[in-house]
Amino acid sequence: MTTDWSRHFATRAERMHGSEIRELLKLLDQPDIISFAGGIPDPKLFPREEIARAAQSIFGDPIKSATALQYSVSEGYLPLREWLAAYMGKIGVTCTAENILITNGSQQALDFIGKLFISPGDTVLVAWPTYLGALQAFNAYEPNYDVLPGPGSNRTPESYRGGGKKAPKFGYAMPEFQNPTGTSLTKDERLALLDAAEALDIPLIEDTAYEHLRYDGTRAPALLALASERAGGIDKAKVIYCGTFSKSVAPAFRLGWIVAPKEIIQRFVLIKQASDLNVSCFNQMIMHEVVSETFDRQKAKACAIYKERRDAMLKALTAHMPKGVSWTKPEGGMFVWVTLPENIDGAEFLRRSIKEARVAFVPGAAFFADRSGRNTARLSFYLNEPKVIEEGIKRLGELLKKA
Amino acid sequence: MTTDWSRHFATRAERMHGSEIRELLKLLDQPDIISFAGGIPDPKLFPREEIARAAQSIFGDPIKSATALQYSVSEGYLPLREWLAAYMGKIGVTCTAENILITNGSQQALDFIGKLFISPGDTVLVAWPTYLGALQAFNAYEPNYDVLPGPGSNRTPESYRGGGKKAPKFGYAMPEFQNPTGTSLTKDERLALLDAAEALDIPLIEDTAYEHLRYDGTRAPALLALASERAGGIDKAKVIYCGTFSKSVAPAFRLGWIVAPKEIIQRFVLIKQASDLNVSCFNQMIMHEVVSETFDRQKAKACAIYKERRDAMLKALTAHMPKGVSWTKPEGGMFVWVTLPENIDGAEFLRRSIKEARVAFVPGAAFFADRSGRNTARLSFYLNEPKVIEEGIKRLGELLKKA
Repeated sequence: MTTDWSRHFATRAERMHGSEIRELLKLLDQPDIISFAGGIPDPKLFPREEIARAAQSIFGDPIKSATALQYSVSEGYLPLREWLAAYMGKIGVTCTAENILITNGSQQALDFIGKLFISPGDTVLVAWPTYLGALQAFNAYEPNYDVLPGPGSNRTPESYRGGGKKAPKFGYAMPEFQNPTGTSLTKDERLALLDAAEALDIPLIEDTAYEHLRYDGTRAPALLALASERAGGIDKAKVIYCGTFSKSVAPAFRLGWIVAPKEIIQRFVLIKQASDLNVSCFNQMIMHEVVSETFDRQKAKACAIYKERRDAMLKALTAHMPKGVSWTKPEGGMFVWVTLPENIDGAEFLRRSIKEARVAFVPGAAFFADRSGRNTARLSFYLNEPKVIEEGIKRLGELLKKA
Repeated sequence: MTTDWSRHFATRAERMHGSEIRELLKLLDQPDIISFAGGIPDPKLFPREEIARAAQSIFGDPIKSATALQYSVSEGYLPLREWLAAYMGKIGVTCTAENILITNGSQQALDFIGKLFISPGDTVLVAWPTYLGALQAFNAYEPNYDVLPGPGSNRTPESYRGGGKKAPKFGYAMPEFQNPTGTSLTKDERLALLDAAEALDIPLIEDTAYEHLRYDGTRAPALLALASERAGGIDKAKVIYCGTFSKSVAPAFRLGWIVAPKEIIQRFVLIKQASDLNVSCFNQMIMHEVVSETFDRQKAKACAIYKERRDAMLKALTAHMPKGVSWTKPEGGMFVWVTLPENIDGAEFLRRSIKEARVAFVPGAAFFADRSGRNTARLSFYLNEPKVIEEGIKRLGELLKKA
């Protein structure tokens, strides 16, 4: 038996590779490094006591635990789906539990969307830059990418076809606090995006991973709310909404959800069955108890702390960044997106920054489907106290002045 | 916006469809039905108290719970992987934590195997019959199927090529208590399977979902153990082993594992990242505490109860089945496989059995990649007490005598 595996692999394996940046950032456990790289919530905010109580009430009870520990339906735990249907109602999306599938975090929703829609060579529209994890999820299904119509775009529908290109399959958008830029779409921009999707005859994916983290301003209606209104009900709308509890409650539950027309949910149920059967029932039961008790309080607690950190980062950027550097001013989420002078390569600058300033961030090129945007960087304000943020940005500014 | 979605779907969507049988079996909640259809563990056997204690020790502790509730590494929780490496050592597979990836149940392992190996039109070798869930997982990647060499097979390696067929990509086997037949491969049969794989130059997938449930006889070495011995170490072996805690502890943890050469584990880590990032860390921490404390005891408890049920089913089959009906005599697992007289269609007989005898089972055709084997049926002895099994088989036998 030889051990050359690669010739056995599917063609898609060529598009799955480790990230050099991820390897670099793995080394950042040293306590003297200030990291703006991660996208993980502050563990101090996890509602530990509520979770402990919910776990106790489930595992301490023979009847509840018999359900909690068994296989369960692929759609997800009904009371949690009902809670979510009511939650969706509050943000303007009228739906029932039958419009909802529970996923293993919202990353799994993106994988399922790739699985349902993408054949090799199909075109997918994404923002430039877009969420790196979406590109990774979709890459397994071997699409090509083109630019999602957005603010300032003057692409005609015709420009997406021709030249041997296949017509686009869907558009992927994060209208609230986009990863990596932190920016949101206004209501008019959302309506324009729906118009563009209609002209291209494609469904839209609405990824709302950060929507619970708004620090000021008011949110525009969800794309799914606008599309349902236009179409006369969710089951006729062509938007698939993906939500998650990872940022607002805790990531370890691996609990996300898809809201979509029933017909699409039924497709995703088949995909869920074949992919991993169902999400852990007791994770869903604990989450149901926790959010029923404390979701609004939890959101408010998180927003109060993260707002301070966002404010600290924006203030420090204004104070310390040299001319020629610009950045976004997000109303929520976890990230500020920085555009460096054109001659500065983000990945090179990261290497230098780790060495000389002991500050880490994510270079921006990874967020572009074509790896362009090399003079950009994503800074997360999420995991550090305001003082640490001030110090880190100061060091970055000084290094940039030298560079 | 029109709502005809199907034209947006990937070509693979044509191979994902609901099962008529599954729909029929959904209706079986009525208490007067005796069901041999399910494949779910008896909830009485879940180690509820151990789980409750482990959850309490994690969620009650601010330090432990900060880790438990956060994102975690895609490889899986290191102490659990180390426990598994020691467990694998006990069944003859010498490996380290680096040879192990934690998956969201073993169903996810099958999905990942499809993702890594299958391009559309590739050939996959499976037993005839085989695990239905494996067919569903692989179907998403659009393979063709051919018959895995096995006992009694006289296929030459050449017979798998030619005629426009692509060379096979891998072979999928369940050497211990196969689903659906309940039968196991002897050591000689395992060695012959490895020979056949070598001649075909393909890796083998070893799915061991039921291996913890042996009621008598002794197990033959794992394919991975035999292949490692031949190749001079696991990292040179061409076998990918998939295990699960769903049958021995509880399915709701959604915890399975892959054991394979490091090179392959690194590929699966990339797939895990893109598919759903990681398995719930607290599920892994609870499982680690539970299996460290009680795995052997748990296995013994389950085997004692299920052995009685298997014995009851085999005894009842001998007592009540008419001539022309034959069945397997499994040494473990959850299923007995029944071959009916050739003129009886399993699906038709199920409809009649539900109506007239109030007994349910799974017709066998679903387990064949080509939907052949229509005069077969899978009976699970898992979820019913011996008396109920005796009554159900008696009713089935009486109906068969009429048919």
